[in-house]
Amino acid sequence: MSTTFFEKHRETLEQAVRATASRIYWSPYPESPSPRVYGEEANELGRAAFEAYKNSDFPLAADGATGTIGDEVSPFGPSLGIQYPYVPVENLLEQSRRAFDSWRKAGPQAWVGVCLEILHRLNQRSFEMAYAVQHTTGQGFMMAFQAGGPHAQDRGLEAVTYAWQDMSRIPEQVLWEKPQGKHDPIRMEKRFTIVPRGVGLVIGCSTFPTWNSFPGLFANLATGNTVIVKPHPGAVLPLAITVSIARDVLAEAGYDPNVVQLAVHDVNDTDTVKKLALDPAVRLIDFTGSSANGNWLETNARQALVYTEKAGVNQIIIDSADDIKSVARNLAFSFALYSGQMCTAPQNVYVPRDGIAVGDGRMSFDEVADALGAAVERLVSDPARAVEITGALQNEGVAKRIERARALGLPVVHDSQPLAHPQFEGARCVTPLLLQTDANDENIFQEWFGPIVFVVATDSTEHSIRLARDTVLHHGALTLAAYTTDDAIAQKVEDAACEAGVSLSLNLTGAVFVNQTAAYSDFHGTGANPAANASLSDTAYVSNRYRVVQTRWHV
Amino acid sequence: MSTTFFEKHRETLEQAVRATASRIYWSPYPESPSPRVYGEEANELGRAAFEAYKNSDFPLAADGATGTIGDEVSPFGPSLGIQYPYVPVENLLEQSRRAFDSWRKAGPQAWVGVCLEILHRLNQRSFEMAYAVQHTTGQGFMMAFQAGGPHAQDRGLEAVTYAWQDMSRIPEQVLWEKPQGKHDPIRMEKRFTIVPRGVGLVIGCSTFPTWNSFPGLFANLATGNTVIVKPHPGAVLPLAITVSIARDVLAEAGYDPNVVQLAVHDVNDTDTVKKLALDPAVRLIDFTGSSANGNWLETNARQALVYTEKAGVNQIIIDSADDIKSVARNLAFSFALYSGQMCTAPQNVYVPRDGIAVGDGRMSFDEVADALGAAVERLVSDPARAVEITGALQNEGVAKRIERARALGLPVVHDSQPLAHPQFEGARCVTPLLLQTDANDENIFQEWFGPIVFVVATDSTEHSIRLARDTVLHHGALTLAAYTTDDAIAQKVEDAACEAGVSLSLNLTGAVFVNQTAAYSDFHGTGANPAANASLSDTAYVSNRYRVVQTRWHV
Repeated sequence: MSTTFFEKHRETLEQAVRATASRIYWSPYPESPSPRVYGEEANELGRAAFEAYKNSDFPLAADGATGTIGDEVSPFGPSLGIQYPYVPVENLLEQSRRAFDSWRKAGPQAWVGVCLEILHRLNQRSFEMAYAVQHTTGQGFMMAFQAGGPHAQDRGLEAVTYAWQDMSRIPEQVLWEKPQGKHDPIRMEKRFTIVPRGVGLVIGCSTFPTWNSFPGLFANLATGNTVIVKPHPGAVLPLAITVSIARDVLAEAGYDPNVVQLAVHDVNDTDTVKKLALDPAVRLIDFTGSSANGNWLETNARQALVYTEKAGVNQIIIDSADDIKSVARNLAFSFALYSGQMCTAPQNVYVPRDGIAVGDGRMSFDEVADALGAAVERLVSDPARAVEITGALQNEGVAKRIERARALGLPVVHDSQPLAHPQFEGARCVTPLLLQTDANDENIFQEWFGPIVFVVATDSTEHSIRLARDTVLHHGALTLAAYTTDDAIAQKVEDAACEAGVSLSLNLTGAVFVNQTAAYSDFHGTGANPAANASLSDTAYVSNRYRVVQTRWHV
Repeated sequence: MSTTFFEKHRETLEQAVRATASRIYWSPYPESPSPRVYGEEANELGRAAFEAYKNSDFPLAADGATGTIGDEVSPFGPSLGIQYPYVPVENLLEQSRRAFDSWRKAGPQAWVGVCLEILHRLNQRSFEMAYAVQHTTGQGFMMAFQAGGPHAQDRGLEAVTYAWQDMSRIPEQVLWEKPQGKHDPIRMEKRFTIVPRGVGLVIGCSTFPTWNSFPGLFANLATGNTVIVKPHPGAVLPLAITVSIARDVLAEAGYDPNVVQLAVHDVNDTDTVKKLALDPAVRLIDFTGSSANGNWLETNARQALVYTEKAGVNQIIIDSADDIKSVARNLAFSFALYSGQMCTAPQNVYVPRDGIAVGDGRMSFDEVADALGAAVERLVSDPARAVEITGALQNEGVAKRIERARALGLPVVHDSQPLAHPQFEGARCVTPLLLQTDANDENIFQEWFGPIVFVVATDSTEHSIRLARDTVLHHGALTLAAYTTDDAIAQKVEDAACEAGVSLSLNLTGAVFVNQTAAYSDFHGTGANPAANASLSDTAYVSNRYRVVQTRWHV
């Protein structure tokens, strides 16, 4: 039983290994929510499954539960009314420790096989997941489907792939023969055992509950660790579905389902995560969220390896362009997409105060700012179409942040306005806010999570590059983009990106946006600047989640 | 120029990659100090080179030096009288930062090529290194040659190999094409740049200055980081020679020699290492030494990745044996070898108080203890032969520790006695001290670094296994060995070793000793217990020393 799932998905795994080596485009999980791909009834079945969760107890047979808990409200309006089992921290930890005792002995093929089957079933339930993600995060349906479904599954598979690749380098047993000249060689048998670290804690965020949690979840599982999944209280459902599927697969494979558990807590309860994070049994923590919380974990959870993705300030350098309209169109989409509630969304746009070269002529700073504002306006002019891009604000905090930004009193390039959602009356949908400022404004050195953009006047492109580099070094960033027709400038920006440790996109004017990364090809985060201490995913992200213990004896 | 060295040594590197995958025996650096291998004059040339260093200024053209410093005394007697350049911390850091600016751009083939050439030259100077190691550490000549020379070079090459293997997985540039159904695919070029972390600090120890420092030194260099090598003030010469060779190779390859620098300080100066370790530019620290200092670094040097090898309690479980004499002979050698001044040397020997099964009969606890004592006595009975095994005590602290152990008042199984060295009158040579105690004695739960062994009475083999496991979990260990003729017991010990995270040697009675590990095959340390937070060497040891920055653009 233990390797049946591994054999079933071996071909997928081998393809994934090749994809991470070549870094070309590849995915086993179609991103199109088309009936031709997922079946004629997939959408309706998914919607029905989601609707059935509402206003009832989530069907999860959680050991050690002492009650129920849950308070999710859709950013598109209605309260979800879903109640999840409440399992006290002590029970979660005790059950995870016990599950670890047997799971750790199952070995790499069993661990990886279980992961691949969980991912396969998650893929089959991508529509159900899409509705769950949409109505917890506020993402538009298409993004909820893609980023919450296939793309998140890709990131999970990617972590499994790195884990498998690294573990499978270690032979199980070898005969070691050391020549002794004329004498018989010294001969030893050596057995190498992959030993996982222990209990892993995966802390989810409210905006990308699956995409940002799957790498840590699957990196831990694939290397033999157990996992306690702690969703953000505002976005439990996607991870509850995930945990439910994982427990089914574990049970079918003959393992303790408590290898994967769900830790739901009240939104005002900060004790649960602290107790979990500081427990000696918890040896791995994967976190996505605020810098304050991420830094707290790095400083205090010293018994664990802590992988964090935190806040940052993503930046755009505009030096020159062939066609400002295609630049502005691409950027406007990046500003509006899921209302900037992406760790990769651009915030600061640097434009020299003396203007830029465009085609054969020049444009002033104001003209560039106006072009950006106009492109946003065009993009959001049809509310019914716009809300599919902007989605809804995940929580009131984002709405208040927009108000705070507006209250700074800076010149407004494009104002944030409510968008009427044709389907959901109470949806918290708005257009992006673009403000104008200059490089001395301290406000640009912090993250304004949400649809808030600063168009920043700089002294020159050289100044823009220095500013971008130093901001990454001191405040962190997940993305940097630049627009230039000058190869020498492009080289300088690339040098600055390497020095600061941030991914760079050059001259994006087409169907790829700076917010997006593609699994198996693009690294998400570098682990080289304050926005994240690790990259999703690479060898370093998995190779320390297990250790090797060897036994040797003479033969 | 930049890849000449890489091409020169490519075949060695490829063989090393294969060796780490197969984990069979392999080495490019012969461990035999035979004239047939290293040349008829190699020994005399090496000795002459060593003698020429004595009582003079070490020939190292160190930038930023403000004076000289040095106070090494051979554990075999004479003061070495070598003066090294003294470079203030500020100068070291500034020079390392400046060297990093160009070195980081050289790329993996240049970094690895330089490493391979340094190792090659170190190998050619193995005799010179042997004398340097002998007269700083107190190792006997044969060990000084092997562990200080070829085996240390092996560990350096091993680190380079893991680094190369991991970095070479990342393609330099790829064309990424995402199908768009009937439309043209989205096409992007993506360039991936290996970006090193910054300045590395390698903190050497007094007993294995090269063996324990080479992994960190070469892991850093091979991944494009610069290195400040800070030797123990009592064992500077081996690392001064190393740094001198490294700087020669760097200069010949056209790089700033300050990529590798030597930081010598006074034995009473604790400021230097603190200043270095806490500087924001220092992003990597490799440390071998006491738990107090290692834990201090882990807790305080938060700006750096810290790899530590600290103290531990290595243990032997004796359950049963075919022939106690071969067991005792093997263990006696492990106790005496370099007077137990090895992080892998056994300290606690667990024997059930009711005795053990031996061959067809049984032996009492006392008989087992006596057999161990007798084997030690036989091994050291000829002082001229014994001192080649025991070497000399590196410092007075070890001698005082033996006195403290004797003062515990425990029954003496074998007393520590001075050994007259036939060649060096003032040599600090002694025989091992074996004491008898039981499992309640708190003294066995700390490291007694030196030739100090406790033969510990336990309730049973089950008790011995539990005791060994818990001691590893709470106090750390680099090695565990067991003697048993019972496969079920062997399995239980192996389970305990996996649970506690420590390497296990079973029934060593021949020419391999528990203290020894073989590069490319045996992992040194697991990184899974308190004795070390990393293993030398594996993927995890190298893969986080660099990051990847990517640049992508449409085509």
